[in-house]
Amino acid sequence: MLTDDITLTDHHCHGVTAADLDRPGFEALLGEGPRGSFDSALGLAVRRWCAPVLDLPPHTGADAYLARRADLGWREVAARLLGAAGTARWLVDTGLPDGLTDLSEFGALAGGEVGEIVRLEQVAEQVIAEVGGTAKVFDRIEAAVRERAEGAVGLKTVVAYRVGLDFPLTSTPPPTLAPEHRLTDPATLGWLVGLGARLGAELGLPLQIHTGFGDPDLRLHRADPLLLTDFLRAHPGLTVVLLHCWPFHRNAAYLSHVFEHVHMDLGLAIPHVGRGARAVLGEALELAPFRSLLYSSDGYGLPELHYLGAVLWRAALGKLVDEWLGDDVITVADAEALVSGLAHGNAERIYPSSDTSRKPKPR
Amino acid sequence: MLTDDITLTDHHCHGVTAADLDRPGFEALLGEGPRGSFDSALGLAVRRWCAPVLDLPPHTGADAYLARRADLGWREVAARLLGAAGTARWLVDTGLPDGLTDLSEFGALAGGEVGEIVRLEQVAEQVIAEVGGTAKVFDRIEAAVRERAEGAVGLKTVVAYRVGLDFPLTSTPPPTLAPEHRLTDPATLGWLVGLGARLGAELGLPLQIHTGFGDPDLRLHRADPLLLTDFLRAHPGLTVVLLHCWPFHRNAAYLSHVFEHVHMDLGLAIPHVGRGARAVLGEALELAPFRSLLYSSDGYGLPELHYLGAVLWRAALGKLVDEWLGDDVITVADAEALVSGLAHGNAERIYPSSDTSRKPKPR
Amino acid sequence: MLTDDITLTDHHCHGVTAADLDRPGFEALLGEGPRGSFDSALGLAVRRWCAPVLDLPPHTGADAYLARRADLGWREVAARLLGAAGTARWLVDTGLPDGLTDLSEFGALAGGEVGEIVRLEQVAEQVIAEVGGTAKVFDRIEAAVRERAEGAVGLKTVVAYRVGLDFPLTSTPPPTLAPEHRLTDPATLGWLVGLGARLGAELGLPLQIHTGFGDPDLRLHRADPLLLTDFLRAHPGLTVVLLHCWPFHRNAAYLSHVFEHVHMDLGLAIPHVGRGARAVLGEALELAPFRSLLYSSDGYGLPELHYLGAVLWRAALGKLVDEWLGDDVITVADAEALVSGLAHGNAERIYPSSDTSRKPKPR
Repeated sequence: MLTDDITLTDHHCHGVTAADLDRPGFEALLGEGPRGSFDSALGLAVRRWCAPVLDLPPHTGADAYLARRADLGWREVAARLLGAAGTARWLVDTGLPDGLTDLSEFGALAGGEVGEIVRLEQVAEQVIAEVGGTAKVFDRIEAAVRERAEGAVGLKTVVAYRVGLDFPLTSTPPPTLAPEHRLTDPATLGWLVGLGARLGAELGLPLQIHTGFGDPDLRLHRADPLLLTDFLRAHPGLTVVLLHCWPFHRNAAYLSHVFEHVHMDLGLAIPHVGRGARAVLGEALELAPFRSLLYSSDGYGLPELHYLGAVLWRAALGKLVDEWLGDDVITVADAEALVSGLAHGNAERIYPSSDTSRKPKPR
Repeated sequence: MLTDDITLTDHHCHGVTAADLDRPGFEALLGEGPRGSFDSALGLAVRRWCAPVLDLPPHTGADAYLARRADLGWREVAARLLGAAGTARWLVDTGLPDGLTDLSEFGALAGGEVGEIVRLEQVAEQVIAEVGGTAKVFDRIEAAVRERAEGAVGLKTVVAYRVGLDFPLTSTPPPTLAPEHRLTDPATLGWLVGLGARLGAELGLPLQIHTGFGDPDLRLHRADPLLLTDFLRAHPGLTVVLLHCWPFHRNAAYLSHVFEHVHMDLGLAIPHVGRGARAVLGEALELAPFRSLLYSSDGYGLPELHYLGAVLWRAALGKLVDEWLGDDVITVADAEALVSGLAHGNAERIYPSSDTSRKPKPR
Repeated sequence: MLTDDITLTDHHCHGVTAADLDRPGFEALLGEGPRGSFDSALGLAVRRWCAPVLDLPPHTGADAYLARRADLGWREVAARLLGAAGTARWLVDTGLPDGLTDLSEFGALAGGEVGEIVRLEQVAEQVIAEVGGTAKVFDRIEAAVRERAEGAVGLKTVVAYRVGLDFPLTSTPPPTLAPEHRLTDPATLGWLVGLGARLGAELGLPLQIHTGFGDPDLRLHRADPLLLTDFLRAHPGLTVVLLHCWPFHRNAAYLSHVFEHVHMDLGLAIPHVGRGARAVLGEALELAPFRSLLYSSDGYGLPELHYLGAVLWRAALGKLVDEWLGDDVITVADAEALVSGLAHGNAERIYPSSDTSRKPKPR
């Protein structure tokens, strides 16, 4: 297939757990609920595709897989799976650091270029923990985001988890801030996302926005990217990437169709849906312009997820392109351009290179 | 196919009309609107699959089909179609009894084991009709639900039809109750569903919740199972089954992914969508853990629906599994386990057996 | 395929731009955003299917395509593409006239029968511009709609763009009307749509309602056809056609299933989604009765859209029907009836003929 050897830019992922995992520990990371299961499309994919990377036959059972994993140790497993992904560049969200490899450790294991995505809520919560709800807290948050952004290639918000995507649109901070360990105040969050939008546009950094599917903290119907319509209209100078999007990926495709500054990925959905990835990708490409769709794995904790994202994305995109070629709806040259744009070209166009991130990229 | 001879547990259906039907009477039951039509995916399926069970050639026209049906009489037609479904156990919602076979009559015709699902709204409306809006009505409703639950294997709510799935979460009854023939008061319904959740958890009975597609009484956008998110969070000790779900079946799959106590079926959608069932099933299995998906026909009135649910479910699941096997994403042994779980194993695990339903099943 | 030579009624389209277009001008019409792109499913389809109609090889590049287009001139291009569509009758929304061919010019180029669809908002805005917010303005609007309706075959509303489909249901005009160039007052719009419903029922004219996908003025989540549920219940004597519907086409199919007076099309979605049309059409036909689905291109500005709508509709429907025939779910005779109903029969049944439109069609 055209996608067999295509190099990927994984524009949104996390570190891997820096520890050996028993079965409950592994399963806790194998789904978005409190406990995932091998008895799922994702579980089948782990056994089918990851087992051979650990020198096991395809479809090895869960216990044998985990035993081999324990034998090899987490570093070797991570190095193998991350290395096998064929990913040349990883953009890593460092906002959920607990127990995960940090940026340089991840880079050493993965063996590709690494860039940092700064999570707005984490920076704000850190500042609030330090200075409390004083009058200067908002200026301090802005200063902290600016500082963190200097070494980074993008910003990210998880406001979908906190108040949903119909957060208030505002550029002024609320009069007071009640210190919270976990920021949930709508007025503060609305201001914070607006700050991210302003700084992203100023610094040439894309703003990633979690939408759609995620863990059970979410009220999924509040995470429909269509709820961002007014926000997207208000920030035409900002490069936006809607993350994950499933099951609202058609809605995200509409937004990336009508707003030229809006991009999307299927993130988390790809490793989870297994063979269903072909259908999901086809639905996104009904309306998404080819410039707008990016690849990511959203791998978190388990390097299996980083690897499966890559394997299943190549398989799904390869199958789709084969069908298009078979029906004579695209030429080989155009198909190659499509594949390379989705695999890495679109991401490389919108993100600054990791070296020169301090200099805003002209839009 | 792997599914050809698989035995089904139809965990949600209704009785059949205990009378011969003319064409308007038949068509009134052939769709969810006031009048269904043979000119639909469902109509084609009746002619294709049910006609041979009545000794007619496949694709027999509607008039000839109905003439043969009249010749045989409703009892013979029901016995043939229910018998041909290959369903070993039927869980029957007895809450819409008008003109339908009762539980024992249905069991005699269908020839399998039968269990009862108690509809909360029907019990409550019966009590209200007897005692009116007195202070003791809420205790009386609880007592009546407990009594009915003793012989039953599950509870069900149709609150989606009454106020939608964003009903108020409450464990206390409202101060007063205005007697209604058809209960539509949000506060009373919120309390009633909460009562069902409490008793279901206490007695080990699953609570079935109508979601998605149904008759025109529904405001379908108020029947999105995502609106249940807070309710599901509030009742982790209750086994829940989301019924039907279409066109929100991906949303239901998300809920069954993140909440271990949540299950789903495609119910009504399967007989209606005809050959489209393969796609719908594939979308559900993108995210639904294999433990969480159940089979039902939601057959009501016409035994054709009970039969088509079974035929189309086997065909759709068989096709999906064949594709997975062909792509080497699953082994034959795992595919067999998947098929038997979806066909009957998952239902048998969560519902008490009909004999011992008085003893709560440990969760 | 069964659909190869089937004649179409394009029950919803617009005129074509009466001017030669440079690349920015062409791209401005190639998508729903401010600028479309050849780098999309739609762009591939233009190059694949339209190029041969202009004597170019399939897959001709964008610049060569536009150069040839300029050589031929807009009239010749329009005549070729509209003529090649195999469309016998075009129902044209004349409510966005700027720079487009008028009805007779379009008819001369297209070479088929032409009927007019009257856009309620345009008539109302014209009257308001003339008489302002006086007490008699509502009577004047009704009179103007009646007058325009005399020569027309249908009415249309774009209330989805103005306040969304949850507009107020009312048959009485608001006490006052603040003159607006572009009508956005909910109370006035609610009354205006109600007027359209009343006149449509009285005069036997279908009311087309924009739903789903459209240009960036839209808040797409306010354009879900399910928000029309109460409106549809309130007007059982009116023939309604839900336009476009994507990505809510399953929701529209539900409405056309439960309400006998409701019809739908996939309009705009068909030319845009390219090879994805097969899946979208399959999803609509899961639940839509065969009597209820109509064909339209929603072609606007570029005759490429009118042509691609026809080509892609025939291909998608032909493929779907071939699959059904291959699986023995339908007979050839039934498939022929299905195809001719969807291609033109359903539209011809619900719209008056263009000649006799002054006489209400009995329902």
